[in-house]
Amino acid sequence: MKKNKLKKLITDIFIKHKLSENHAKICSEALVNAELVGAPAHGLSRLKMYCDRINKKVINPKPKIKIKKISQSIAHIDANNSIGFVAADIGIKKAILNAKKTGFGLVGIKNSGHYGLSGYYAEQAVKKNLIALVFTNAPPAIAPHGALKTLFGTNPICFGSPTSNKIPFILDSSVSMINRGKIRFAARAGKKIPEGVALDKFGNPTTNAKKALEGVQLPIASYRGSGFAWMVDILSGVLTGGNHGGKVKDPFDDFTGPQNIGHLFIVMKPNIFVPNFNQRIKENIKRIKKLPKIKGIKEILYPGQNKFNRYKENSKREIRISKNIFKDIDILIS
Amino acid sequence: MKKNKLKKLITDIFIKHKLSENHAKICSEALVNAELVGAPAHGLSRLKMYCDRINKKVINPKPKIKIKKISQSIAHIDANNSIGFVAADIGIKKAILNAKKTGFGLVGIKNSGHYGLSGYYAEQAVKKNLIALVFTNAPPAIAPHGALKTLFGTNPICFGSPTSNKIPFILDSSVSMINRGKIRFAARAGKKIPEGVALDKFGNPTTNAKKALEGVQLPIASYRGSGFAWMVDILSGVLTGGNHGGKVKDPFDDFTGPQNIGHLFIVMKPNIFVPNFNQRIKENIKRIKKLPKIKGIKEILYPGQNKFNRYKENSKREIRISKNIFKDIDILIS
Repeated sequence: MKKNKLKKLITDIFIKHKLSENHAKICSEALVNAELVGAPAHGLSRLKMYCDRINKKVINPKPKIKIKKISQSIAHIDANNSIGFVAADIGIKKAILNAKKTGFGLVGIKNSGHYGLSGYYAEQAVKKNLIALVFTNAPPAIAPHGALKTLFGTNPICFGSPTSNKIPFILDSSVSMINRGKIRFAARAGKKIPEGVALDKFGNPTTNAKKALEGVQLPIASYRGSGFAWMVDILSGVLTGGNHGGKVKDPFDDFTGPQNIGHLFIVMKPNIFVPNFNQRIKENIKRIKKLPKIKGIKEILYPGQNKFNRYKENSKREIRISKNIFKDIDILIS
Repeated sequence: MKKNKLKKLITDIFIKHKLSENHAKICSEALVNAELVGAPAHGLSRLKMYCDRINKKVINPKPKIKIKKISQSIAHIDANNSIGFVAADIGIKKAILNAKKTGFGLVGIKNSGHYGLSGYYAEQAVKKNLIALVFTNAPPAIAPHGALKTLFGTNPICFGSPTSNKIPFILDSSVSMINRGKIRFAARAGKKIPEGVALDKFGNPTTNAKKALEGVQLPIASYRGSGFAWMVDILSGVLTGGNHGGKVKDPFDDFTGPQNIGHLFIVMKPNIFVPNFNQRIKENIKRIKKLPKIKGIKEILYPGQNKFNRYKENSKREIRISKNIFKDIDILIS
């Protein structure tokens, strides 16, 4: 389907599910963007879930979002159980505004939900020539180091920076060996997952996606990845007033209440300390790209380049929609 | 040697090398702390190196450190090639002060040097009931993903948080599989390093510490660890005005000029968004500690607990000093 037709369709579905036109558009943009950057696990495969959560009243389609000003730089947002995209969109825009004014913006959000890709929000800041750190927690997926039960989410560490060229530096790294969305996607598609990324519920290694969903995902780098996940849970959950310590509900499986996910946005002007950041980052990237390469590697890429290239390529074509998702869309729009 | 006697001795050595008494004490405290927490690679094994760099005029023992106020929250420090401990001590104290005043403190430092353990500075903030993110770059140790040559430092990601008990949460994780200091320590001690943490200069796996120092250290989690290292280089080097992109000199091997390392401190009040952070973090830790454990694990520990326990145990005894280091000390004090 053509990009703009798809965006209109998704917007209509969200409007039908009681979102305002503005909020529906924000959600539609984010979901289609995920498809275009090649992250379908954060794209249309979640559409039905969002609508189900609205129908079951665990996402509030007409939220009264409160923005509390703490200082010229700092704001706290109570998202009133809005869909995550809307809360995050308001949050990053507020952080950008505060950073533009004071050099630095810090925004904490509570009572939000799954917002898709962290990098999508970091990119908004980078497009305004700002640096961003973005944190969110997520439903239990990873076992803390030493534990036999999942508790931390895949809790990404996300960082964006201007590069002095049109392709932003966007690091958006889950601290899980594999994204939960990818396992879910594999489970839906009946595909296997790689070895060494998950254990089943008995603690045995598995490549079966369904068994992995019932079991434990492994963090990157053993105890260090577990530590990163804990850090992100504190920054985005404990600090903001969101759920934390394993209390974020799985959006697909648990309709007993809202998720109350927390997000934290830290945004900075790149020239707060030096006048020539753009020249410096250009030089930084240039030096690294010039290093001798491992056999078979054509170019050393910075984080975000691959995603940008995929976006560009995918934007030229129609977006492929699987049968299952077409079925979802048909039901949701009718 | 007894802790206090050792501290006095190290202080005297630094005074003999032209540091002010105050600065000498700051350095001595940091080095002895590294021994006590069980990180000898950041301890006395570096004493001779610091003195050599002062003698060769690539560390400035009488720096004119300039603190530039950017706003009530933000400051930029030009450390004038001071020893890293002194620059970092001034920097974290300024960030703490600004955070106490405005909820948030952001301090960038340039023209600094190796400052030891990032966690040591995060801990200072946590002891004042603040949350801290601490970033520094370091001499080339890790190859960027796809490159055959080292460029990034071991560039730690460091985060500290109050816990509502006396043991702070201190995550201080190098993004290298192994700390460069540990390899250097193994090389001095004639010991092997673990498999899978480094390559020799030809790109072959090695457990020989000396060959690893000439070769390439591997990042954690492949391209993700490489991305983390790049993020830290941008935050602590490109942003602050410090060296970056592989230009930080190795303090042991390169006396052709100062290191010009950059540091970045981000400090926040834990109650900027919620009134009951201490209660929330207590609950967070309690939930995680209560999880079922893997066979053989007695307690799930949060980052910083091990280090705290080692500090407590080691503080009860005399500090063991190796023959080589005693020789260094003897020469340096005489």
